[in-house]
Formats: sequence, structure tokens, C-alpha cells
Amino acid sequence: MKRQIIMLGIALAMPITTSACSRGDVDTSGEAKPAQEDQAAPSGGEATSAQSPDEIAKARNLSPADVSAALKTYMPSGRHDEYVQFASSGHGGQVLAIGLPSMRLLKMIATFSPEPWQGYGYGAKSTMDTLNGGNAGDKELRWADDHHPALSETAGDYDGQFLFIGDKANARVAVIDLRDFETKQIVKNPISNIDHGGMFVTPDTEWVVEGGQYAMPLGGGYAPMEDYKEKYRGHITFWKFDRAAGRIDMAKSFAMEVPPYWQDLCDSGKKGSTGWVFCNSINTELATGKADKDGVNFESGVSQNDMDFLHVVNLKKAEELVAAGKTTEINGFNVLPLDTAAAEGALYFIPEPKSPHGADVTPGGEYIVVGGKLDQNATVYSFQKIQDAIAAGGLDKDDYGVPIIPFDKAMEAQVQLGLGPLHTQFDDKGFAYTSLFLDSAVAKWSLGGDYRKDGLEPWKLVTKTPVQYNIGHLATAEGDTVSPDGHYLVAMNKWAIDRFQNVGPLVPQNFQLLDLDQPEPDKMPVIYDAPIGVGEPHYAQIIKADKLKGWEKYPEIGWDTDKMAKDPDAPLTGTERVERDGNKVTIYMTAIRSHFTPERIEVNVGDEVTLKITNVEQTYDATHGFAVPIYNLNLSLEPGETQTVEFTADRAGVYPFYCTEFCSALHLEMVGYLLVKDTPAAQ
Amino acid sequence: MKRQIIMLGIALAMPITTSACSRGDVDTSGEAKPAQEDQAAPSGGEATSAQSPDEIAKARNLSPADVSAALKTYMPSGRHDEYVQFASSGHGGQVLAIGLPSMRLLKMIATFSPEPWQGYGYGAKSTMDTLNGGNAGDKELRWADDHHPALSETAGDYDGQFLFIGDKANARVAVIDLRDFETKQIVKNPISNIDHGGMFVTPDTEWVVEGGQYAMPLGGGYAPMEDYKEKYRGHITFWKFDRAAGRIDMAKSFAMEVPPYWQDLCDSGKKGSTGWVFCNSINTELATGKADKDGVNFESGVSQNDMDFLHVVNLKKAEELVAAGKTTEINGFNVLPLDTAAAEGALYFIPEPKSPHGADVTPGGEYIVVGGKLDQNATVYSFQKIQDAIAAGGLDKDDYGVPIIPFDKAMEAQVQLGLGPLHTQFDDKGFAYTSLFLDSAVAKWSLGGDYRKDGLEPWKLVTKTPVQYNIGHLATAEGDTVSPDGHYLVAMNKWAIDRFQNVGPLVPQNFQLLDLDQPEPDKMPVIYDAPIGVGEPHYAQIIKADKLKGWEKYPEIGWDTDKMAKDPDAPLTGTERVERDGNKVTIYMTAIRSHFTPERIEVNVGDEVTLKITNVEQTYDATHGFAVPIYNLNLSLEPGETQTVEFTADRAGVYPFYCTEFCSALHLEMVGYLLVKDTPAAQ
Repeated sequence: MKRQIIMLGIALAMPITTSACSRGDVDTSGEAKPAQEDQAAPSGGEATSAQSPDEIAKARNLSPADVSAALKTYMPSGRHDEYVQFASSGHGGQVLAIGLPSMRLLKMIATFSPEPWQGYGYGAKSTMDTLNGGNAGDKELRWADDHHPALSETAGDYDGQFLFIGDKANARVAVIDLRDFETKQIVKNPISNIDHGGMFVTPDTEWVVEGGQYAMPLGGGYAPMEDYKEKYRGHITFWKFDRAAGRIDMAKSFAMEVPPYWQDLCDSGKKGSTGWVFCNSINTELATGKADKDGVNFESGVSQNDMDFLHVVNLKKAEELVAAGKTTEINGFNVLPLDTAAAEGALYFIPEPKSPHGADVTPGGEYIVVGGKLDQNATVYSFQKIQDAIAAGGLDKDDYGVPIIPFDKAMEAQVQLGLGPLHTQFDDKGFAYTSLFLDSAVAKWSLGGDYRKDGLEPWKLVTKTPVQYNIGHLATAEGDTVSPDGHYLVAMNKWAIDRFQNVGPLVPQNFQLLDLDQPEPDKMPVIYDAPIGVGEPHYAQIIKADKLKGWEKYPEIGWDTDKMAKDPDAPLTGTERVERDGNKVTIYMTAIRSHFTPERIEVNVGDEVTLKITNVEQTYDATHGFAVPIYNLNLSLEPGETQTVEFTADRAGVYPFYCTEFCSALHLEMVGYLLVKDTPAAQ
Repeated sequence: MKRQIIMLGIALAMPITTSACSRGDVDTSGEAKPAQEDQAAPSGGEATSAQSPDEIAKARNLSPADVSAALKTYMPSGRHDEYVQFASSGHGGQVLAIGLPSMRLLKMIATFSPEPWQGYGYGAKSTMDTLNGGNAGDKELRWADDHHPALSETAGDYDGQFLFIGDKANARVAVIDLRDFETKQIVKNPISNIDHGGMFVTPDTEWVVEGGQYAMPLGGGYAPMEDYKEKYRGHITFWKFDRAAGRIDMAKSFAMEVPPYWQDLCDSGKKGSTGWVFCNSINTELATGKADKDGVNFESGVSQNDMDFLHVVNLKKAEELVAAGKTTEINGFNVLPLDTAAAEGALYFIPEPKSPHGADVTPGGEYIVVGGKLDQNATVYSFQKIQDAIAAGGLDKDDYGVPIIPFDKAMEAQVQLGLGPLHTQFDDKGFAYTSLFLDSAVAKWSLGGDYRKDGLEPWKLVTKTPVQYNIGHLATAEGDTVSPDGHYLVAMNKWAIDRFQNVGPLVPQNFQLLDLDQPEPDKMPVIYDAPIGVGEPHYAQIIKADKLKGWEKYPEIGWDTDKMAKDPDAPLTGTERVERDGNKVTIYMTAIRSHFTPERIEVNVGDEVTLKITNVEQTYDATHGFAVPIYNLNLSLEPGETQTVEFTADRAGVYPFYCTEFCSALHLEMVGYLLVKDTPAAQ
């Protein structure tokens, strides 16, 4: 086994420079699988005038399985999807809301990157404030590599109120309010430049957990890599969420200092294991990479040990230590020192094979499933066994003084699945589903313990479905909650190669929908291929659509979308006006089908202009835009919304401002003129 | 008729502030139609374990029409779509590539707005240069309201080589190369701040035509609106396209000065009418809007006249005048003066009813179809009659000296379609399809002349299909070329209201696919509803997928995506190095699964860093990202691509740079460290 793992590691380290992967041939790195010619070929599927199902299927060369898949995923005109999948868009920096089973993209939610259709980052003050809240000091950050969305939970179930998303590239967290599907807050981690973007909540959303990744000197200072072991550190950050305010409370948040093993995915305990958090790590080798000529590449250096360390955090204990003031401050942020966490029983390690990615807690909270991506097994740890081992005491410690729970004392089972297990989710019938990157497959396997009242053999592989290609994460319907739904699984494949019409060398991702409702337990066919051409989604959660209670319009005309309350200073019908105070001009404007009031504004060059505008409509979908040419300004004003935009009229000329949302038959006529006189502004 | 039009205008001017529109009830402004409860209801569609088509249809409550629609639009795993629709994303500022008939979004092509997944506008020099090329002097423009995509044509047919897209908000044009689906050029119109975003090409793409819109003093200076008639002007700009260079040639381009009637959509002549261009206008009233208290709103002021002016441009004549040097220069740009164009026979007017939107030339070039959005008819003009009237001479002139061809001398037919005709496209059987905004319907009607060899009555409404709701533009397969395909029509609806799962007050657009292959000519059912949650697409063109020859990878390792040639200075495997010259550091780096070379870089704070990086892979889909935390940098490196990024290392610290594209099982290990020493840089 050990030799096999090492050989695999070597194979993976070998780069592929041939075009063997093209057209989906076998890639010897295991990073692509053969395409079935009858599928990958663009032939078939032509338009047909046939009408009967049989005639259409024949004309379009649809197999009986295709027909079933079509009928299981098609949404008739006007009918709503049953589930909504919230997926990160990876280095797109946004969040995608996708309907299931149709796999239609319902909305890209602007989060970390400016997006003009939503008026996000193009002048609207509330959005500029949100984006600037995520800056790193004087560094203006306008993108993210968002990895892990986390829906807010109540008693371990999604409640449909908030969505959190982590930015791996800059160690940040965003908060999205699911009443209006808008990003309300971005917080920057003060002690780290980077993390894994891992975002998980505790069962009642008291804490939003951010796992770290590449180690660095906490606080952001410089230290040579020769001092890696002494001066570089990892972190696990616990953000306190104030549900009433709908905001993360920085002052009540804290980080736990951990060794410079690269922390990876985390999951929170559930039910009986509530109050505990579990995080993987992948660089217990303390590799520091290849300098100009000497040393070994990270890919090899990080893959030497057969075992890394599962981090087991007693969050309740950590909270006590923080409350007792046993923290230090780094850049004004509370940090629980490593030696304190280790000495006081807030942090334990358990060996885990090998370079793991996912650590996933079963719905009942009894087990933690770890997928070692250079291993062939899903390794299952028992929470009770972990507690017993801690109680028994007498634990060895690692170089940093962290107690190590022996592997065999905590391990419940190992289930051989195949090559490259990454991430596991669950269904409502006691089965687990694990993505296999190297096999390009999804594995279904049986849990044990109380999950096996059906007499099936526990801890055993049931079946595998090939996916195209190289699946990263997967998501099942409410599959990481205390009550998964089953029904659907989405394979989030990283490579698509030729599965879709060519749209250039940058290829869309491939989300594949798998049907979990087959009568035979060993069947879970792919029933839909969805190209994702707006980013590289990393992870997703799938919520029952009827849990979402999005607003159709804002509750009152003159709504402040930051405070989520009526703005007492909002312009309303009849109160439109222009106020001047020296070179300061304040415009109170309204928008309604199909005109702005006022329609003509004259200012002097140099004037500092503040424009407040209200969309006074209360009709669902009666959105208006407001754009000023050349000044790089565009607002999206949903019914009732008030926004403020500030700019200096520093260029003379004539600027027709207009509604950018096609709102009515006279939309083209919804325009006004901003005239900037070339006479100097009054002082 | 006249009274009816005026009443309609008044009705439209009445704003709706009730929530009558909510849940899709009738909106008395005509801006939404009732939703059919059996469709709008979210019920039905649940997951089912049924397997046979009949059982699934029963369990999911699918009608026979739903079943046919599902089978006509479903694409089996791996099968390619038959057509690709290129849609603008409106004020999203990007272009959407959508597969038909599945309506799946294949890619959002970054165009005017930065997009980090594509590495567009986040440090990659070629993309920064493209974006900055579209700036307005010192005004950095980072979004657009893109309206009209135009595919390059050869002999009047799409050739799949280039895509042009216009920015209404800032009067700009972008050029996308369909070999790699990347934006290569953005040009700013030097004489105007705004246009309609109308983008149309001549049959061999010699010219890309940009129609103007809201009048202003050409060149961008200030003039009071009291001088509107004298000092404000419209324009139609003709951009010269150099196909070999793949770029617009600014020096050989020119604009035609036209009266301050708001120019709207244009279309180019085809076949016999090649060399002529036709543009609508909508403000022959010369309305100047409502100042603080006095005056009338634009929506009313612009809607007074029963007739506006179709602009008929003799492009060949205009070219001759430009060649003869009869132009003036405004901001260094060639402008053909209005009086010259009018006197020399380069510009004519024809009355057109009423506040029209689309001017669309039939496939054979014989007719121009105008939809007057406050009229009930499609008005058809005969190119031959226009030529005869011009030859006959003795034409009256408008106030600006432009000859006016009498309506009845040029009109071939009027076809009563319904309320709010906007835009017309064609099929391969002699039928036209017109969007009706106020009726929320698509009208199919018969052309006459040589199109009617089937004995059907010419110039007659055939049928209407209701759409949900308020259709703006529509597109049929290759429907504005000399050889339309038929088969599919996409209704680009502006309102969706409750057609999709609620995702907040900002509602996605609704693209509906209509089937044109029904045996009965009076049937064209909606067979798919596609939510568009990434912008407000305005217009689209649909091309046969097999005409697109996108690259799977760049032809050579070390590819310069701007010059579309190998970069002789590109770092290659074995030539990686770091060069220092005082405080200037140049890094030559390569990326390959799964490591960067070099992996560790030390610089001093203050160093000016130039990093050149090549993705040396040649495997289809083997893309690597390159991100530097905190410095707001992310590149997307497709196989073979070389990019350059320049930044000043102005903050000391440790910055793990890493691959942002999940490229291999050891993707997480594809990382390096940029160390910025807090010692001052050498001078």
C-alpha cells in the first residue's frame, strides 16, 4: 500500500506536455478520462419538425436513458426549480445561484468583484463601502478566489437567511443577506494574507469558521523561509456572527494559532459533537519549496509523509480561554496562542492519510470522514473514540506540543473507494458520497452504526459513477446538514475538455447532475451536463427552494439597503430638488416609468456632486438603472431602493444620464441631461 | 388611427406605482401580462424515482407539450449544441455565449468590465492595455452598457471570425477574436459621450456601423440646451475594420454629422442594397426634457410626432466624400459635415411611424422593415422605390437641408401586427418575426415580392405567440444574414416577474426559446425558459456552431495573446530566471502541473517587479491561474499562453502566490512564496 501511494505521488508530479488530453484521450497523469465518442461528438441533436416523443427521440438520437434524463430535468415554462445550489465562482469572486434539477443559472451574486448590472462597485455608496470594507489597508482588493459558501443554519439545518463565502486569495469573508441576495459585508482577516477559503458555520451560526492554508508569519511581517518552523504559522479563525445585525462582529472574533502545517478544509461538529471543529492539514513535512536551483518542489515536498494531522478543536474550551483573556493581540485581533491552545486542551491532532482534502461530519455528528487525496480510502473517525482517547490521557505530543491521539484509537473504519478521494457528503438513507479526482468518479458507500438498520453491510463501497472529468467537490441536497434530502448530487468537475461546444482555450467547468432516486441502489446516472462559463466554482451547498424567502421588492419606498431600513433623507415623489452650498451640489432625484425628476441638471466644473436617487416603484421587477456616461457610474435601483452616489464634476460637457434597465416601452426616453459648465465652480 | 396612437402614448406615460404587476397580474401600462397560474405556480416538478417516460411525466406533471419541448431542447451528456447565441449582457458590460437548443450559458466573455476568472483586468498586461484603450482621456472606464453584438460577415453571411459589441453608455466598440474568444480592442468614439450601442457590419465587414443616440455638442464641449437645435448634433460613425490585423483602424474611420434627432438602430443594406445604411430616429420633436419645474418630460416630448425620420445613408457616396477630403476634424477624428452629406446625396430622410426602434433589411436586401414602437404596424420600405424617388429628384428638405423622400413614394406595405413592434428578424421560408413589447408577443408574418412563391397572401400576420414578459429584441438563427436558417427564435424578454425562483428584488431576464419547426405554420410554441442572471442582455445573434473554429490551445508555447504570435522573450522550460537591475527585478517563470519555476522569490520593498510567466502545457483545458495575495493580481494562463504583469513590491511581507485553476490532484501544492524584505530597495 505504501509503495503504491508513493508511486502515485510520483506519477502525479510528472507534468503532461503532450496533447494526449485533447479530445479526451487518456491522460497518463490520470487527470482526464476517455470521452465516449458517441457522446463527445457534436453530431446529432439537430432541430426537427417531429412532434411525438418517439419521433423526436429518434430524430435527435436520444437513448431511453436520455429521454428519462430530459424528463427528470426539464422545467416547463414558468415552473420553479425545487432546489437552489449556491456555488462559489472560484477566482470569479462571485456567488452563483443555480436551480435544480434544471441547472439553470438564476443569478450571479456580486460579492468580491465589481459587477455593473447589479450596480455593485460603480458608484452606489453602499456597495463601495462594502467593497472597501474588504480592502487590506491601502490595498484596494477587487477580486477574490472564493471557495466555500456556507448557508446560515438553525439547529444544524439551513435556515435560508444568510450566506457566507470565503476568499482564499486574500483571507476574507463576505456576508450575503438572502432577503435581497446582496452582499452586505466583507471582512479582511487581520493576521493572514491567505487562507483556504474554507467557510463553515456552527449548527446555530454563532461562529463562521475560516480554515487557514499556506503558513506565513502571523500579522503579515517578513521572515526568511529558513525560519519557517519557528516563525511561520497557520491559523483557524472563528468569526462571531451577530444574526440580529446580520454582520460579523470583528471585536468578538478570534483566531487560533496552529503549526505551519497547511490547514485545509474544516467542518463543524453536529448534534453530539457540537462545540468541536475538525480541520485537515497537508504539509506536516514543513516543506518550503524549491529556491532557484536547490530544494524540491512543493508538490513533492508536501507529499512525503504517509500521514498528516487532523486538527481537532475544542471550540467550547477555546471560547473559555478567550473569555478568560488568554489571548494575545495581532494587528488588534484576538489570537489564542498555540502553546496555550495545546496545553489547555483546545487543540489535538490525529494522524490522517495522506494529503487529505475533505473532513466531513456525518449528519448525526458521530463520525468524521476524511478523504486523503493520495490515499485510496475514506477514513472514518469516531467522535466518541476521540473523546475516550482524550479522557484516557497520556498522549504523545508533536514538535509544537500538541497532543496526538493515536490513529487506531480514533479510527472507526476505512473504506476503499479508489484514487483521489476528496470530499464527502451524505443522503437521507445512510449513504455517503465521495468525489474521486483521479478516478473521475463519484463513489457511493454505506455508513455504519445507527445508519445501518437496513441490514446492508456497513462501511462498504456500493457503486461508482464516472464523471467528465476530474471532479473536485460534490454537493448533495442539504447534504452537509443534520437532515440531508438525497434526490440530487452535483459533481463539480474541474475539467470539461471537449464536452461542450468550443468557446476558446479557456474551457467552462462542468457541473453534472446525478440522479439519486433510482430504484436500484447501485445506479446513480448523470442526467444533466451544465457548463459553468462564469468562473471556476469550487464548492457549493444545495438548499430546498421553499426555505428561501427573498423579497420581491423593498418593504418601503426610500429603502437603505445597507441599514435595511427606510432612509429618512430619501428623495420621494414631490420632494425632488437640487440644493447648492458653494461648490457642493446635492441632487434629490426620483425614478419611475418612464422618467427621472429632475431631468436636467446644470453644475459647474469642479462642483462636488452628491446625488440621492429613489426608485419609487413598488411593482415586482420594476427595476431602474441610472448611468452617467464617462464618469464610470451605474446604479441598479430595485423597487423602493434609494442609493447615493458622490462624484466631482471635473470634466465640462454634456452627459446624458439614462435608465440602463429596459423598464417600459418608453425606456429609451427615460433620460436626462447633466450639463457641466466650463465656468469655474463657486467657492 | 392617429387618436389611438396618441392615447396609447398617454397611457404609456402614466407611471405605475401600485404592485399590480406583482405575481404577473395585468399592468395597466401594458408592461406586463397575466401569468398563467398553472405555469407560474412553483408546484410540481419534484424529484421522482419513476423511470419510464410516462411515469416520469405523470409524477412531474408534464403535459404532452412539455414532453416534446423537453426532448427538443435536452442535450445528452457530452453532446454539443447546434447553435451558439452571442448576446450582449447589457449593463453587465460583457458578452454571453449561449448554446442552442439547450440554452446553456457556455461562457461569459469579459469585454468592457474586469473579470478575474478570465484574468481580465487584474494585472495581465495585454488585458490592461485593452481596457485602457477604451478610456476617455483620463477617465478610466470599467463597465459598459453593451447593446448590439455583430458577428463578422463574408458576403453577408456570418463567418465566425470576429465579434463586435457596442457600448451605449460611453460610445465605444469592442473587438472580440473568436479564435480564443478574447477581447482584443476597445475604441472610444472621440466625438460623442454616448450612442445607442447599435453595432452592425457591412456585408464583408469593411465597416462596423455605430448609430448615435442622445444628441450633444459633437466633440464633448458644453452648450446650453437652449441652443439644442443649433449646437447639439447626432452622429452615425463608420469604423473601418482591418480584418488582417483583427483591429479597427481609427485613422480610416469617420463619422457623419446628422441632426439632433436621436438616432437609434441601424442596419446595413444586403446584396442589391449593399453600400447603403438605414437608421431610425426618435426625437424629431427636438425635445429637451423637463427642467426643474417647467417643460415636459422627455417621454412625452419625444412622443408627439406621428412620424419620425428613417435615415438613409449612401455609404459609397460618403466614402467618396471622405476620400475627397470633404471632412472636418473633431478631436482628430474625421467627420463628414451635415450640410455636405445633405447637399452631396449621402443622406436622405423618409418619414416613419412612430418612435421606431428596429430598422431591419430583408435577407435579399429588397426591403427595410421598420417597427414603430408607438405604432401598430410593421412598415416596409422598398429599396427600389427609394432609388426611384431619389432619381426623380425634386425632394423637399428638412430644417437641416436633408432631402425628404415622401412616405408613399418609398413605402411598399404596412402590416398590422399589434402593440409595440420593436425589432424584426427573418427565416428561410419568407417569413418575418417581429417582437411586440406591449403585447408581450412574437408576431410571425409573411413577406411579399419574391419571398411569396408559395401562394400565401403577402404582407400578412400569420400568428402570434405570447411571451413572458415584455419582449425587447428577438433573434432567429442567422436571422439577419442573407441566408437565415429558421428552426429557432429567442425572445429576449425584459421582465420575468415570478417566472423563476425568487432570487431577490433584482430579477433575471427571461430568454424564451420558440420552436419554428412546427408542421403547422401558425404554431411557434415556447419550448424553453432560460433565466439570464448575469446582466440585462439587449440583443443577440445566433450562429451555426460549426462555423466557429475556436482554438483548443495556443499554437505555440510562449504565445502573445495580443499580437497573436509567439513572444520571442517568453520564458520557457529551462530558461526560468530572475534578473536584477538596481531596484528593477524581472522574473521569468513557467507554470506546469503542478509547480511554478521558480517557487521562491525574494525582493526588497520598493522593487519594481516585472513578472513574465508562460503556461508551458499543450493539453486542451490545462489552464493555470497565477494569483498574488493582497496585490489584487490574478492571471488566467491558457495552454501555451505567456503573460506579463508589472507591480511595485510596496508592502513588505510573505505572499504565497498560487495556481487559481484546479489543475491537478496536486493543485493545492502548486504554490510559491513571494517574500518582500523590509529592507530598502537598492538604487
